[in-house]
Amino acid sequence: MIVKGFQAAGIAAGIKKHGGLDLALIAADRPVAAAGVFTQNRVKAAPVLLCQRRLRPGQAQAILINSGNANACNGPRGQEDARDLTRESARLLSIPEATVLPASTGVIGQPLPVDLIKGALPQLTARLRPDGLAEVAEAIMTTDTRPKTAFVREKLWGQPITLAGLAKGAGMIHPDMATLLAFVCTDAAISAPVLKQLLKLAVNRSFNRISIDGDTSTNDTLLLMASGMAGHPPVTDLAAAAPFGKLLDRLLADLALQIVADGEGVSRVFRVVIEGAASPREARQAAATVATSPLVKTAMTGADVNWGRIMAALGRSGARFDPEQVSIAFGPHLVAANGRGRGDAAEAAARELILAGPFTVTINLAAGDFQDFYETCDLTEDYIRINASYRS
Amino acid sequence: MIVKGFQAAGIAAGIKKHGGLDLALIAADRPVAAAGVFTQNRVKAAPVLLCQRRLRPGQAQAILINSGNANACNGPRGQEDARDLTRESARLLSIPEATVLPASTGVIGQPLPVDLIKGALPQLTARLRPDGLAEVAEAIMTTDTRPKTAFVREKLWGQPITLAGLAKGAGMIHPDMATLLAFVCTDAAISAPVLKQLLKLAVNRSFNRISIDGDTSTNDTLLLMASGMAGHPPVTDLAAAAPFGKLLDRLLADLALQIVADGEGVSRVFRVVIEGAASPREARQAAATVATSPLVKTAMTGADVNWGRIMAALGRSGARFDPEQVSIAFGPHLVAANGRGRGDAAEAAARELILAGPFTVTINLAAGDFQDFYETCDLTEDYIRINASYRS
Repeated sequence: MIVKGFQAAGIAAGIKKHGGLDLALIAADRPVAAAGVFTQNRVKAAPVLLCQRRLRPGQAQAILINSGNANACNGPRGQEDARDLTRESARLLSIPEATVLPASTGVIGQPLPVDLIKGALPQLTARLRPDGLAEVAEAIMTTDTRPKTAFVREKLWGQPITLAGLAKGAGMIHPDMATLLAFVCTDAAISAPVLKQLLKLAVNRSFNRISIDGDTSTNDTLLLMASGMAGHPPVTDLAAAAPFGKLLDRLLADLALQIVADGEGVSRVFRVVIEGAASPREARQAAATVATSPLVKTAMTGADVNWGRIMAALGRSGARFDPEQVSIAFGPHLVAANGRGRGDAAEAAARELILAGPFTVTINLAAGDFQDFYETCDLTEDYIRINASYRS
Repeated sequence: MIVKGFQAAGIAAGIKKHGGLDLALIAADRPVAAAGVFTQNRVKAAPVLLCQRRLRPGQAQAILINSGNANACNGPRGQEDARDLTRESARLLSIPEATVLPASTGVIGQPLPVDLIKGALPQLTARLRPDGLAEVAEAIMTTDTRPKTAFVREKLWGQPITLAGLAKGAGMIHPDMATLLAFVCTDAAISAPVLKQLLKLAVNRSFNRISIDGDTSTNDTLLLMASGMAGHPPVTDLAAAAPFGKLLDRLLADLALQIVADGEGVSRVFRVVIEGAASPREARQAAATVATSPLVKTAMTGADVNWGRIMAALGRSGARFDPEQVSIAFGPHLVAANGRGRGDAAEAAARELILAGPFTVTINLAAGDFQDFYETCDLTEDYIRINASYRS
């Protein structure tokens, strides 16, 4: 997973209580076009606030990431700590401080172990190398059970263009913005304003359509850096950049699905599709409500085709529809039509589908022409176990 | 638990798969003033729709209730079944069909076993007696582990006034209207329009301030009947009825708390108080978001004073506030002030409080003068177990 113009590394600095890689750096060879998307939560972690400020010129050169501590709810000290660490990284890399973006994930409300991290930075910068991105994917994990990476290479504008993406997720996953942390490096030459627009569109079709538990984080951060080393003439126009946008869509959708599949305690992954909604807003709202309903999720845990709970969730979603017109299908198996059940045989077939693996629940509201979807997962006893003991 | 002017009974009709009382009747000696509050869910069960229609004149004489089957999402047949059963009850009681209100709770999307219930109605009506309300409380249970009753008797207008309340809850508990089923009988003489207004106010301070899992039901129904047998002159004015409203408040708050305490898999009950909100709407929204956050709830399961998750929930609630002004206290123990943690000693004291029993989390947003609250509970592995296997 090498992208022209970037080096990366991850190490174990001792921030995580139980060991493992927890500090990572991605560095471009020079200042490059960069764009970001961040949590919509009103409570934003210090690194998020600093990133947003530093990204204003649309340029960046490095990203310093730690897991094990979110550096959120630490007051002015959190800001100072984030600035302090990026300053030290910049010094070691001999680049301007303002081009280093910080990102943190982990426990909220505990001061960053700044001295510990500072002490580890020389080792981290010394370890930078072109094939270091996989190590970064590992270093950003918290309750994730596996690193999440995606890689796309395709010829655009006469040159092979590479995109490499890393993400961590697992809990507190819900739009907007569902990522916790994700980083994308590409060698495409795309101007920062166009990058930003493409990123927003792609996020809306990927990370903003997944849900694990409906909670959102103080730290959600997705950063995209484009080194421009692919060798094609720079693209500064949104329409011209569309083929790149498609690759980005594919990459982010891949990462987003990996996050749901590795959700805390997840045993089943499914897609909720709403069709026939009266408006785009209602389509999304209905999909989100069904995808986040604890009763729908636990029914899926038990492979119980309890479509009545789907009806109840739809009914509180705010979407307009006539209950007696609704149909619900699990894959090809229609279990309810005109708002009523279609019997045990249909449910038995749907149950087989649930047991077999990822599946799609398609709900037609028969109220209009709009559709939307969510990728979601079940809710298991393991989710409770993980989250009841997260800090211990 | 006897209220002048009412008789009641509960029997095992065989609707519930695993046995137990599942059919109940409350009957007034004559048509009495009645009021109801119902689910706001767009998908309303057949008995809810029929109740709403029959309550329009503000009078009723009997309530027929079954557990084990919600009679929801059954199309026109559900309506016919509800009407059929109330017609048969009315015939046995020799009262007009339109004065019998139906209520159902249980699995959604399965036709009512009408013949089974019809066959049991003679036994049920024959069993009616003044002290039968406790039996009704038992017959309306589904996943509840215990019956929920409340009783208030106080002198108003020169006469002892009695209120008796029954409720069932346990899952799908969230405003609006959180009850699933609740029934209140009183011998006060209050006109139907006044009853309706008092009921709405009281529900807003009780059942609409509790949450177990954020899901709402298709069947939520709260019915209040006033026999007027207490012996005082009829009250037809809202201001004059205020003392009765207070008793009703107390009764419903009692029942609502019992529902939270018996929530599916609940191990801890707590109250979330929001102070200093910029508007009443934001106060409620912030309280509801914290009270329903899976991450806050699972932290409480683990007795983990993870106030960072409370901050994160506040941040996505839509309430306006400055994160660096927020304070959070568990009982008297302030664990965060000015948006930052106050250290391990405060958290240790708060943890003791959580372990000790029902507690209050008070959050001051420092953004205004408005306050609100929610009664809620933790989220445990038992909740998952119960709901993953509900229909099996």
